[in-house]
Amino acid sequence: MTTTPGALMRAEIAEQPSALQGLLDHRREITAVADLLRRRDLRYVTIAARGSSDHAALYAKYLVETVLGLPCGLASMSSITAYRADQDYRGVLWLAVSQSGGSPDLTDATTRARAAGATTVAVTNERSSPLADAAELHVDLRAGVELSVAATKTYTNELLALWLLVDALAGRGSGAADALPAAVAATIGLPAVDEIVQRYRFAERVVTVGRGFSYPTAREGALKLMETCHLAATAFSGADLLHGPVAHLESSTPVVIVAPGSVGAGLLAPVVASVQERGADVTVVAPPHAGLAARTIQVPDVLEELSPLVQIVPLQSLSLGLALARSLDPDRPRGLSKVTCTL
Amino acid sequence: MTTTPGALMRAEIAEQPSALQGLLDHRREITAVADLLRRRDLRYVTIAARGSSDHAALYAKYLVETVLGLPCGLASMSSITAYRADQDYRGVLWLAVSQSGGSPDLTDATTRARAAGATTVAVTNERSSPLADAAELHVDLRAGVELSVAATKTYTNELLALWLLVDALAGRGSGAADALPAAVAATIGLPAVDEIVQRYRFAERVVTVGRGFSYPTAREGALKLMETCHLAATAFSGADLLHGPVAHLESSTPVVIVAPGSVGAGLLAPVVASVQERGADVTVVAPPHAGLAARTIQVPDVLEELSPLVQIVPLQSLSLGLALARSLDPDRPRGLSKVTCTL
Repeated sequence: MTTTPGALMRAEIAEQPSALQGLLDHRREITAVADLLRRRDLRYVTIAARGSSDHAALYAKYLVETVLGLPCGLASMSSITAYRADQDYRGVLWLAVSQSGGSPDLTDATTRARAAGATTVAVTNERSSPLADAAELHVDLRAGVELSVAATKTYTNELLALWLLVDALAGRGSGAADALPAAVAATIGLPAVDEIVQRYRFAERVVTVGRGFSYPTAREGALKLMETCHLAATAFSGADLLHGPVAHLESSTPVVIVAPGSVGAGLLAPVVASVQERGADVTVVAPPHAGLAARTIQVPDVLEELSPLVQIVPLQSLSLGLALARSLDPDRPRGLSKVTCTL
Repeated sequence: MTTTPGALMRAEIAEQPSALQGLLDHRREITAVADLLRRRDLRYVTIAARGSSDHAALYAKYLVETVLGLPCGLASMSSITAYRADQDYRGVLWLAVSQSGGSPDLTDATTRARAAGATTVAVTNERSSPLADAAELHVDLRAGVELSVAATKTYTNELLALWLLVDALAGRGSGAADALPAAVAATIGLPAVDEIVQRYRFAERVVTVGRGFSYPTAREGALKLMETCHLAATAFSGADLLHGPVAHLESSTPVVIVAPGSVGAGLLAPVVASVQERGADVTVVAPPHAGLAARTIQVPDVLEELSPLVQIVPLQSLSLGLALARSLDPDRPRGLSKVTCTL
């Protein structure tokens, strides 16, 4: 194992195109799970996860709601594991997402949801894990071993696995994801990111903003910045930002606004304007046609549903670059371990 | 209308005991709504809200899951209003929570959820509002007119209205809430809060933490601090904090940990320890018996389910006090209005 700071995170960011391709090559494993699920009368979806995987869960929530048209919620695990509520989960598809599959509360909650009648699917990067054992069905992330504490390739493979599952559940079987490995490769090593690293070298806080499909990216980007750079990073949905928190922005606040395709960009235009009015420093992550009047890190244009896979990559690189510029090692953030045990 | 900074917010914080009593006196209105709902075959609950009301929605999610045992999710409104997904909401109870009832996206989403088969209930402080008109049923918050931009009494009345609704849906009809007006009155004007105002006078950021029933309070407290004091305030669930963000805490970070009754306090003990290990400055909001080893703002002990109504009050007072100490007017935060229109 190398000791160059950030070497692991840099290598794993760069592995994302091949990790995504590896999962695409095995998409039939996910289609097979979807075929089993389609025989059940599933009416609602609950997704359980923590940390980065919780942002993949939020992405899947938008997918379930917009592609499958089913109501979907994120699990409040303490309702099950701490308050020991008796639940009725008949008709519920319970998706548990975790790179390690080792979190005790997630495993406990999944066991109890299954006992309460839910159809349970574990989505993990570890085929042999307590969570995979607890669930009825399993989706293998196939991202390969991830060594950096900061999750990167397991996150993007989680997004792709969840998209492939929903795509198959909807009976679409579309090939839209085939373009992803090349699109993600094109977002690695962007000079625009290096410029932002220099610009935000001394920032004490960062606000990230998304809406709809780009909101999970804003959340995951903020977490990466917190855990690797020790920045006070806070993520907002563009709508919620205007409901109060916009008051706390100042001219010294860098605001990174993640704009997906046309729908999301339209929703975010008034947010960009409102934030700029306050004099905050705005950087937009967007495809070329987004038409938002601000400094922009341009990323390839892909189907809006798939845009979170492309748009997180510059934020991963920004976290890596800022950490190194601040003499921090993003592979070993102080006081963090790869698997977190919460009860 | 007075022009003394914070006079409105101070008066409305102090009105909370009587506003709660007013709602308790009309609890039969809510029981009547619950009686209608109990005749439907409701299997799932979706709650839609923004801003402070979204924290009341999160509170209601814990209630629905632990008291009713039904899976529950918070609505991602853009799935409905922006991406225009066709949804199947049969068997779903859709609760829309808004003090003004005037937010266009919430009204639009409620109209569409109702058309998709949901049983819809609007919970608002305005009986005549677009949202109340859009929903099949209505729960009146009866908090009286709220003038300060920072919501206080409408928030606690939202919590009580949702508790009364869930309590009645569960067929409990318990009198546990009768103790609330006195318990809330006992949390107004605590000297411990004034000491924290002085201590955090120059803080640039604050982290708030909760778990289970105290997590919505951490979220609402952070929002109040952001909108009234322009602080970079970030809320975490205790479990998620340990999954990464704990890395960014430093000895200059004030951390306010909200501990509810025994279950929540047990979950938060390792969080208090982990945060203190990093040297961060910890203040706990808790009942006397919580047994957490840190500076504590003591609040009356009530049923854990009802503790969010008591525990938010010192955080409201802290926001008011800090804003005034910083020469800001919490009644009129820069650039905010009482009703926010997002599409």
